[in-house]
Amino acid sequence: MTTTSYLQELIGTIAGLLTTVAFLPQAIKIWRSKSAKDISLAMFVCFCAGIVLWVIYGFMLGAFPVILANVVTLCIAATILIFKLRYG
Amino acid sequence: MTTTSYLQELIGTIAGLLTTVAFLPQAIKIWRSKSAKDISLAMFVCFCAGIVLWVIYGFMLGAFPVILANVVTLCIAATILIFKLRYG
Repeated sequence: MTTTSYLQELIGTIAGLLTTVAFLPQAIKIWRSKSAKDISLAMFVCFCAGIVLWVIYGFMLGAFPVILANVVTLCIAATILIFKLRYG
Repeated sequence: MTTTSYLQELIGTIAGLLTTVAFLPQAIKIWRSKSAKDISLAMFVCFCAGIVLWVIYGFMLGAFPVILANVVTLCIAATILIFKLRYG
């Protein structure tokens, strides 16, 4: 790989890690406080539906990183959705 | 395009729209209630940083849909971050 494409893949990987891991502190915060009043149900229903489609897209593309990142994101986002329904 | 690649691009487009638009009801909810107590600051700092990197990645790739979707997501997510700092 050239330096540019190496840097490109590095930036893409860090971007994917950040946007996936970001949901974790939100899940932990709700779990600790048992409060999800300010969380939008519409956001997490819409977001989880979108992530399911990203996983399907990843399978169609045969793109393992797309599948992996989105399955992890889906697990955390679905947990927040369940917390919202429980503590909302 | 074949039927499969057409379906593939359609699923990818709907996925992108859903995961972008999802943040809108969250921003509207906070703006109406003026309350962001349950929103995780760490989530939106981490998420916005990741989206900035996705935009840079899109520019490096020359991928206009990646740039567009992430600039829109960044605008909404940054608004939620500002709301969190203001009403948190």
